[in-house]
Amino acid sequence: MLKKISLLGATGSIGTQTLDVIRENPEEFKLTAMSVGRNIEEARKMIMEFSPQLISVQRKEDAELLKKEWSSVKVLYGEEGLVEVACHQDADVLVNAVLGSVGLHPTLQAIEAGKMIAIANKETLVTAGHLVMEAARKKNTTLLPVDSEHSAIFQALQGEQEKNIEKLIITASGGSFRDRSREDLVGVTVTEALNHPNWSMGAKITIDSASMMNKGLEVIEAHWLFDIPYDQIEVVQHRESIIHSMIQFHDSSVMAQLGTPDMRVPIQYALTYPDRLIRPGKRLDLVEMGKLHFEEMDLNRFRCLAFAYEAGRIGGSMTTVLNAANEAAVSMFLENKISFLDIEAYIEKAMSTHQVIHRPDLETIHEIDQQTRQLVSSWL
Amino acid sequence: MLKKISLLGATGSIGTQTLDVIRENPEEFKLTAMSVGRNIEEARKMIMEFSPQLISVQRKEDAELLKKEWSSVKVLYGEEGLVEVACHQDADVLVNAVLGSVGLHPTLQAIEAGKMIAIANKETLVTAGHLVMEAARKKNTTLLPVDSEHSAIFQALQGEQEKNIEKLIITASGGSFRDRSREDLVGVTVTEALNHPNWSMGAKITIDSASMMNKGLEVIEAHWLFDIPYDQIEVVQHRESIIHSMIQFHDSSVMAQLGTPDMRVPIQYALTYPDRLIRPGKRLDLVEMGKLHFEEMDLNRFRCLAFAYEAGRIGGSMTTVLNAANEAAVSMFLENKISFLDIEAYIEKAMSTHQVIHRPDLETIHEIDQQTRQLVSSWL
Repeated sequence: MLKKISLLGATGSIGTQTLDVIRENPEEFKLTAMSVGRNIEEARKMIMEFSPQLISVQRKEDAELLKKEWSSVKVLYGEEGLVEVACHQDADVLVNAVLGSVGLHPTLQAIEAGKMIAIANKETLVTAGHLVMEAARKKNTTLLPVDSEHSAIFQALQGEQEKNIEKLIITASGGSFRDRSREDLVGVTVTEALNHPNWSMGAKITIDSASMMNKGLEVIEAHWLFDIPYDQIEVVQHRESIIHSMIQFHDSSVMAQLGTPDMRVPIQYALTYPDRLIRPGKRLDLVEMGKLHFEEMDLNRFRCLAFAYEAGRIGGSMTTVLNAANEAAVSMFLENKISFLDIEAYIEKAMSTHQVIHRPDLETIHEIDQQTRQLVSSWL
Repeated sequence: MLKKISLLGATGSIGTQTLDVIRENPEEFKLTAMSVGRNIEEARKMIMEFSPQLISVQRKEDAELLKKEWSSVKVLYGEEGLVEVACHQDADVLVNAVLGSVGLHPTLQAIEAGKMIAIANKETLVTAGHLVMEAARKKNTTLLPVDSEHSAIFQALQGEQEKNIEKLIITASGGSFRDRSREDLVGVTVTEALNHPNWSMGAKITIDSASMMNKGLEVIEAHWLFDIPYDQIEVVQHRESIIHSMIQFHDSSVMAQLGTPDMRVPIQYALTYPDRLIRPGKRLDLVEMGKLHFEEMDLNRFRCLAFAYEAGRIGGSMTTVLNAANEAAVSMFLENKISFLDIEAYIEKAMSTHQVIHRPDLETIHEIDQQTRQLVSSWL
């Protein structure tokens, strides 16, 4: 049966790879609604190829333009448009691949609307994991992780019981700077930081990989998705990104999911779950690899990861501050306004000045998110 | 609820480790029936400790002895005794840990009696996979693999569908002689062959590991257990024995089970399936390991593995010949009557002279098994 998909963040890295999966399987999947940001040229091509019923763009003026060009497509814009895409009546699955905390509200609305949700927007769980998981439980919604690490854990959990989990082991490639000492991180350029060894991803997540904040956000995401305390989530450096993550069960048995680094595999799994669909292309060849390496993650060298554990353990609104400070600081780094090590300094400063609010509601989260961004920007 | 266990082959390596698991979990497991061979001294200790209702020994005279010593325990002997242990009315699970094709008849009887079967006796599936699997299907019996490789595959298959399997990847430590060239295998001693790098096991299986016949038997066993063609079963050398085996699915995703080499883990899993029970003791530490290695399996150096694939592909009675010739030859090697490389020469010779019978019945299998042993012995 044709599965109808709504996609938030179509022009991003996960978005375009989701479209790859849809394109490769026209008898399985149909794009029914999508959102893009400001890349209207790309959006036009996507409308031509996939003929969605609904598209939402970021700006009103872009929406007006597109409306004139396509009479057969409903065109919306802004936050309201995102929610309409997320909740589109015909969609069976929402793929939430927008970047940053803007993904939160549409996710909650889609849960309310009873959609299955493939979630690639980790900030949603980082800033409001308690609200999202509570809503999902109430509506009995399955949240399908798209991140390779969480997809690996989710796959390893199939046929198993959560009560038997002893530890989650999240692997980390180590990012662009894994072979540099802390001293070597002083003065690194944006171009260097954007050079990820294994994965082809968007700019923000690639910087997060270099600073190890990406792994920190994943730890928090895993905490919420799998309901596991932080003490039972371990990060291990594994430079080849072949073992995507593992579950250690309390009988000492470890289940892992492996594969070549290709985001289309976890994306497709989320779309076909609980079944699997044939994918052509490269297979894992361990003999060709020869060796897989595992190293301890150095929390002193990668302080963002330590901050994420700290924010997660403190809980409440602290993870919102962690995430907002990081988003703001990474933007400033990408604009060459601050240095790479300033990112973690700004996050630390933002966290240290924050008064935690426990179980914040959506409005409070939104406020704290905005305040933190303004605060961090004011330090320039 | 207390699970009652009958155990064939209690004094062997798998047998004693099964008793370890029962001993460690007195509120979960109770030994209700057991068989031993000629090690009566050990049997006495086991009766004292576990108070089974029924014990069967190999020889009548040993049975007479034990009967006099214990009035509260039913004592039997021989093939008939094995079957009674296997089918003991109180047993929920049969652990079949006897060595060699003697395990076949009791397995079939236990399936008829509706027992769950934890199968460590690989010769049963190698010599009569078609009969065992057909009986299991008819009775809707779950065969729970105990071998670490098959347990890994079985665990990786939980929550998955067999139709989505693209390939089984069975790992092989490489055995005692993995770092020797074929020339170096000339004249190796029994002591050298018995020195397995990772696993502590019985003599026969350790020799089979050195000759790679053990991996060959496992390939055939996997073929039957998981209903997978031989072309979709691959063997990869992995010297650390940490990844116990893997399934590659047709979406390119690979699921693996990992752990320190300890047979009590898969034994316990078979006894607790589909649940898992806390096991104390050592955890896998990948950082401590540092590296995992993968190498191509050299089918020219390890000809027994090639013979097993060949016998499996030919099918019918050929795998019975493979197994019987191997059992006879390994016995002769352990008695210093033939050289290590003679083992494969004898197997090759036995296979080359055999006229295959397709879908042999139990009697035919038994005859061919006996004939092959006599034939191989006659070559001395």
